[in-house]
Amino acid sequence: MPPPNASLLQVFPPRLNLLIIRSLPIFSLARVPKIPFRCCSSSSSSISPNPPHQSSTSTSTPATQDKKKEVERSGALSASPPAAGAGPGGNQTTAIIDVNPPRGTRDFPPDDMRLRTWLFHNFREVARLFAFEEVDFPVLESEALFIRKAGEEITEQLYSFEDKGGRRVALRPELTPSLARLVIQKGKSVSLPLKWFAIGQCWRYERTTRGRRREHYQWNMDIIGVPGVAAEAELIFSIVTLFKRLGLTASDVGFKVSSRKVLQAVLQCYSIPENLFGEVCVIIDKMEKIPLSEIEEKLTSIGISLEAIKGLVQVLSLKSLPQLEELLGAAGDAVADLKQLFILAEQYGYSQWIHFDASVVRGLAYYTGIVFEGFDRQGNLRAICGGGRYDKLLSTFGGDDIPACGFGFGDAVIIELLKDKGLLPMLTHMVDDIVFPLDLELQGPAAMVASTLRQKGRSVDLVLENKRLKWVFKHAERINASRLILVGDSEWQRGMVRVKNLSTREEHDLKVDELE
Amino acid sequence: MPPPNASLLQVFPPRLNLLIIRSLPIFSLARVPKIPFRCCSSSSSSISPNPPHQSSTSTSTPATQDKKKEVERSGALSASPPAAGAGPGGNQTTAIIDVNPPRGTRDFPPDDMRLRTWLFHNFREVARLFAFEEVDFPVLESEALFIRKAGEEITEQLYSFEDKGGRRVALRPELTPSLARLVIQKGKSVSLPLKWFAIGQCWRYERTTRGRRREHYQWNMDIIGVPGVAAEAELIFSIVTLFKRLGLTASDVGFKVSSRKVLQAVLQCYSIPENLFGEVCVIIDKMEKIPLSEIEEKLTSIGISLEAIKGLVQVLSLKSLPQLEELLGAAGDAVADLKQLFILAEQYGYSQWIHFDASVVRGLAYYTGIVFEGFDRQGNLRAICGGGRYDKLLSTFGGDDIPACGFGFGDAVIIELLKDKGLLPMLTHMVDDIVFPLDLELQGPAAMVASTLRQKGRSVDLVLENKRLKWVFKHAERINASRLILVGDSEWQRGMVRVKNLSTREEHDLKVDELE
Repeated sequence: MPPPNASLLQVFPPRLNLLIIRSLPIFSLARVPKIPFRCCSSSSSSISPNPPHQSSTSTSTPATQDKKKEVERSGALSASPPAAGAGPGGNQTTAIIDVNPPRGTRDFPPDDMRLRTWLFHNFREVARLFAFEEVDFPVLESEALFIRKAGEEITEQLYSFEDKGGRRVALRPELTPSLARLVIQKGKSVSLPLKWFAIGQCWRYERTTRGRRREHYQWNMDIIGVPGVAAEAELIFSIVTLFKRLGLTASDVGFKVSSRKVLQAVLQCYSIPENLFGEVCVIIDKMEKIPLSEIEEKLTSIGISLEAIKGLVQVLSLKSLPQLEELLGAAGDAVADLKQLFILAEQYGYSQWIHFDASVVRGLAYYTGIVFEGFDRQGNLRAICGGGRYDKLLSTFGGDDIPACGFGFGDAVIIELLKDKGLLPMLTHMVDDIVFPLDLELQGPAAMVASTLRQKGRSVDLVLENKRLKWVFKHAERINASRLILVGDSEWQRGMVRVKNLSTREEHDLKVDELE
Repeated sequence: MPPPNASLLQVFPPRLNLLIIRSLPIFSLARVPKIPFRCCSSSSSSISPNPPHQSSTSTSTPATQDKKKEVERSGALSASPPAAGAGPGGNQTTAIIDVNPPRGTRDFPPDDMRLRTWLFHNFREVARLFAFEEVDFPVLESEALFIRKAGEEITEQLYSFEDKGGRRVALRPELTPSLARLVIQKGKSVSLPLKWFAIGQCWRYERTTRGRRREHYQWNMDIIGVPGVAAEAELIFSIVTLFKRLGLTASDVGFKVSSRKVLQAVLQCYSIPENLFGEVCVIIDKMEKIPLSEIEEKLTSIGISLEAIKGLVQVLSLKSLPQLEELLGAAGDAVADLKQLFILAEQYGYSQWIHFDASVVRGLAYYTGIVFEGFDRQGNLRAICGGGRYDKLLSTFGGDDIPACGFGFGDAVIIELLKDKGLLPMLTHMVDDIVFPLDLELQGPAAMVASTLRQKGRSVDLVLENKRLKWVFKHAERINASRLILVGDSEWQRGMVRVKNLSTREEHDLKVDELE
């Protein structure tokens, strides 16, 4: 066994980028000599866990194997394209797999995950400020929960299938129906109003288009049991609060606000049956995406007269409340709700963030009152978020007639926007300490040191294999470690370790129980 | 408009449980009188958003509607069982839905979600202490990723289906294959070793049994690129660290540890082909669940001799390392690995948590070395967690031959155990302040007050509807609010609000900008 190389502590580089020439002794765990397996009669002297293709190394010591692997890999994975049939022998027969996630879905490697965690943390922090409670539902729901006959894109693109028991199920396309289901289920056991939020993955399936994602995460905030627009005002303010936290201003983003009651007023005026309301809204919502002639065709096909269509188109073009009031009259909930919302927005202090725009309808059939969407003022992106009042959803599900409103806020558009604006944070892996045993024999003491530091709440990366000091310094840079703790034999015999502050380059020896 | 009822502040109850007799004036927003819709020729004077079944109230003012709703509901939801065909008219035609989540899945109402968040926070905190980075993968993966021919329960119960494009996909039953896929995909862009963790929902589908859940969440920690058992020692220590955080001791829980190399040594001794290794392990893993005769039958059917079966059964009964060494000899990686692991455990300081038990095999085909499982010492529950080394998984997927190990830790058994031990925390909704406008006209000022407090980081529940003071006090108890901020007209005219400390019952008036 080589003597522990304590002198290494003396050649410590004063700067991280100084080249370390001297290498550490290779992994040299003294293992008991190999003797034959007693219950065996054969003379085979080695029981190797290696599959046949590795047989050339199967009789070498673990130490040299380890070294060989390290040299071969140079500390990085080699992504050689998997050649068909090139799988090694061995005890598993899994076929070579596609390394990409299924089409339209994402992996979250550490960088992306940090960003997602940061965004979700902001969602949760806003929810906490507004005293909302977090809930969640299964990502898989009964398909019936999402089946609506209004022709919404969201239900037409349902990621649904039959399970092995023959039941129709779907990966949820949105969270609101599950929320409504849970509220009905909870019944009298919960007190109204409820202020609930959820962050969940939502799915859709599109057969034809490529490149569009099939999943995204959505932050939902819902208020159940409040009939007045104070609820909508609070919800919009919660989004404004998020935007501000993210560094966005009223010149970057805004909200278009309208009310489904505006359309309802027009439909009622032309004596269009109420049961067509949802369908009409869903068709009209596509106004900016498909030609007007097609909209008219669709509306005509469900029995809306040309005169009524004209009325609808006229109303939808309105961009100011006075115009709306002129057309509809001041009476009716549509105008009154909107007026009150704008008064509240002023008192909250976010009136510069919102304006009336009758063209906002939203694509979900179940909205009944105020509807709103967040948009970027440069007009490059799809809606950032959207929501509204859905006072009838619970009763159409068989529950009591309870007023409700809420919004959905996806994880995709906001990230695009923040990127465009240069507002994405730089998030790196941050570690407090690296603990590095200078010799394999010191792995246990190093573990003890790591444990001591972790008990104090420090994030500790313990080096678990035989590495060169040069690698450790590179690694420290990569993970933004603040300190390097070297466990060397001569120090350890005095109960000490060497502590190097990686920003000041200062180093000193410390007793283990003095480590902080 | 009634004068703001500022005098209410004087009748403030000295204690929460004091009955408030005097009620607040009902919601009485002065809305503009209703006049006919201008583009209409009909004399209908009201545009009501209410569906037909509510027509009796459709001409009443919003104020009385609101009051009626509140009285009817008494502040709680009524969960009247949905009668078939009892759905109200209206513009949506959704059928009455089942209020339960799909069989075998869970909703997370606030109480359950708080517990889940608490548990996940502990997972994440341990991961942070060990300098692991979080990753995630799609819950839906290509079925091929999970197809293994070893007859594992996990692949036999795969929640798989054909998507609309005819592709075989599956809700992931575990996270490790996705991790392996991502590691291969990242290739040279990442430096080894990787220390990654994930918390994700995993699914299974069982056709026959009832009551067992079809989903659970799993915390995984994996180390990719470290060949030695220092990695396993670190992983087990991370679980010990979690157990300690949760209040569990070495007398509550422990780890059974073995190595697949033990079985490999036996198989090699009887010249059993290596490609049967995974299958043999999967069969043997069921030893404690099904009769020995059945195990023997299964082993015989794949060509294992009776002599070899005897050898396997003999080895599996071993409960101490000296016994194992006696049987296998001190040579070979099996004994050496285990010995080194136990030495490290001692140096880490957790040797009283672990013991050797050759019967631990684990049900996954891909393990190649050390395997371990966490168990409760009372023996009431299934394994709490399990893991091991899977040095061949990446290469069988077509990647480089990179050593790896990790564990999975579910959310179900640990919660059962903590419940049994009385270690579940009491987690309640916590709110800093309730802001309550004493009059509807003060909704805006109340919003302003709420906004001011939120800017200071306080969690504020703003009362959004006309409620009685009595309700507000009850509500404050329910959400554990620290303070009640009353916004009354006479105070507000002086720029002040009344602040009541709900634990000390003290109250005083404060300027809004003095609120902290």
